[in-house]
Amino acid sequence: MRTAIEAASVMNPHPNPRVGAVVLDRNGRVVGRGVHEGPGLPHAEANALDDAGTSADGGTLVVTLEPCNHHGRTPPCTQAILDAGIQKVVVGVADPDADAAGGVARLRDAGMAVEMGVLADEVVAIDPGYFHHRRTGRPRVTLKTAITLDGQAAARDRTSQWITSPAARDDVHRLRSNSDAVMVGAGTVLKDNPDLSVRLPGYEGPQPIPVVIAGTRPFPNNLRVVERNAVIFSPAVRDLDTEVVVIESGDHVDLQEALFELGSRGIVDLLVEGGPILADSLLEARLIDRCIFYLGAKLAAGSGEPPFHGAFRTITDAIDVHVEDVRTVGPDVRIEFTLAPAEVA
Amino acid sequence: MRTAIEAASVMNPHPNPRVGAVVLDRNGRVVGRGVHEGPGLPHAEANALDDAGTSADGGTLVVTLEPCNHHGRTPPCTQAILDAGIQKVVVGVADPDADAAGGVARLRDAGMAVEMGVLADEVVAIDPGYFHHRRTGRPRVTLKTAITLDGQAAARDRTSQWITSPAARDDVHRLRSNSDAVMVGAGTVLKDNPDLSVRLPGYEGPQPIPVVIAGTRPFPNNLRVVERNAVIFSPAVRDLDTEVVVIESGDHVDLQEALFELGSRGIVDLLVEGGPILADSLLEARLIDRCIFYLGAKLAAGSGEPPFHGAFRTITDAIDVHVEDVRTVGPDVRIEFTLAPAEVA
Repeated sequence: MRTAIEAASVMNPHPNPRVGAVVLDRNGRVVGRGVHEGPGLPHAEANALDDAGTSADGGTLVVTLEPCNHHGRTPPCTQAILDAGIQKVVVGVADPDADAAGGVARLRDAGMAVEMGVLADEVVAIDPGYFHHRRTGRPRVTLKTAITLDGQAAARDRTSQWITSPAARDDVHRLRSNSDAVMVGAGTVLKDNPDLSVRLPGYEGPQPIPVVIAGTRPFPNNLRVVERNAVIFSPAVRDLDTEVVVIESGDHVDLQEALFELGSRGIVDLLVEGGPILADSLLEARLIDRCIFYLGAKLAAGSGEPPFHGAFRTITDAIDVHVEDVRTVGPDVRIEFTLAPAEVA
Repeated sequence: MRTAIEAASVMNPHPNPRVGAVVLDRNGRVVGRGVHEGPGLPHAEANALDDAGTSADGGTLVVTLEPCNHHGRTPPCTQAILDAGIQKVVVGVADPDADAAGGVARLRDAGMAVEMGVLADEVVAIDPGYFHHRRTGRPRVTLKTAITLDGQAAARDRTSQWITSPAARDDVHRLRSNSDAVMVGAGTVLKDNPDLSVRLPGYEGPQPIPVVIAGTRPFPNNLRVVERNAVIFSPAVRDLDTEVVVIESGDHVDLQEALFELGSRGIVDLLVEGGPILADSLLEARLIDRCIFYLGAKLAAGSGEPPFHGAFRTITDAIDVHVEDVRTVGPDVRIEFTLAPAEVA
């Protein structure tokens, strides 16, 4: 199972899940390996069985996610497993996808020995966004923020350049490379004109889709995110050279609806890069699943702009979180924490 | 040297330095060990030579700090070393104390082989406050702050209870136990009435001296710090049942003068526990040497009270710091950083 997990963890087949599979022959030797590389391509089980060939007969299939039982763009894996003469299937976790599920029941009905729940937590950890997405219909939302050690996202004059080091900024690009889309508010777009792309030496993987939550302020066409075919959510129709999705709630975009819309488009992991108004709106609506805070090795020595544009009125209003990881990144500190219990299948 | 360092690191003989010594006989076997336990008690070298007895003759003395060359409350170690028949002395770092220094020169004048600078950084790290104190005349100032992950020390209504966990609060008591004095501002005393003592199960070591920086507000006698014989610094004479030191600079206490006064009283390590006005005054005067920030596993989700009561006007005003250590303490995050280059002897 660990071999299957390791193979799967480096893939990004979103909106499909990261899945790895290994075939053992009747003597327990590894004779086949497979991963799922992307939508429309064969599933991990099919690749592993193909790799094993006739050695699969009488053997065992180990797979991180429950084999599918439906005809999508590829045939059901359950049938392929039965056809290959596999005697036993070992599964990490059940598939939360309503269409794909049912594979274990189908195999057991056919008399197959199936072991479930092997290293389940580790399997979920290779693709928490997938489990979140299939359970909620929304992407897993990760908020990234850069602040000083004393918690200021910007000075009173809104200057914020270089709070963090090049090492921390590279880490943000790695975060982007693991995200299907990157969201910012209109304020950030108008102030910084970011392109929200992955810029890492040698990187040739997919680029995340830029997403902008716009209010009612005018919004020019000569912005980098427009050139990169951003999806703009707006409470009103706009004439822009890129797609505008109108989801209104008074003067604002209904953020939950926007996330459902992104989920329906196959966005599994969404990275939110600010600013403080958007961060606060998402937090107030309890739509943030994970935060990654970069604390630059600096003191602001006073109040500037906090990372959330709200009011901390009394101590009991503070929101409990769970710290998952702390480390240094170059001279800076990186803290990862979640706002809801960790995903379990 | 490492044996001597380990033995010294668990002592607190302030205002004297933490020192450890080991005697090897002429065959290189350890025959004596000693540490310095406190003012008026024998130095580490004397204890180690005493432990070794006649086996020291022709042997080597390894000592973390340069042996003293003066008659204080105990006789000079240089003479004891020569008298014992030691052939070679290995020293960690030179003594920055003006009165005690000169030991290596004295030994070399007497024809002794002396090796200097062995594991010097590790020796300084067992007692950085001592080196800072002797170099500057002021205690090493450590600021402790508890804030939320998004950098708020208190809500707008000033509530701040339980931002951090019991595990983090225990860690603060360990910090206090390694400090010679604990300083707060009058605001903290009037709001929380802390006693600033070490409260740890089984702790029987020395209690730090409470120190209060007071402004011009009235200040009652029935406060815990007064009962604990706090030293109160004030810009004006006050009638209190504890010592009041008047050091005025307009309506305020001159903080640098207050630190010199504490230094002259043998306070080597000073812990500052707030609040934000005192923290900001010390930071503005560049009198903070080290910060330990406890980040409670909470989000304030908006602006409350930052840890420094100043204004972060523009990004270039941010003060660069050096992160020394990050870790979790229970559910919370602990970050240690310094504001000046690390001490070297």
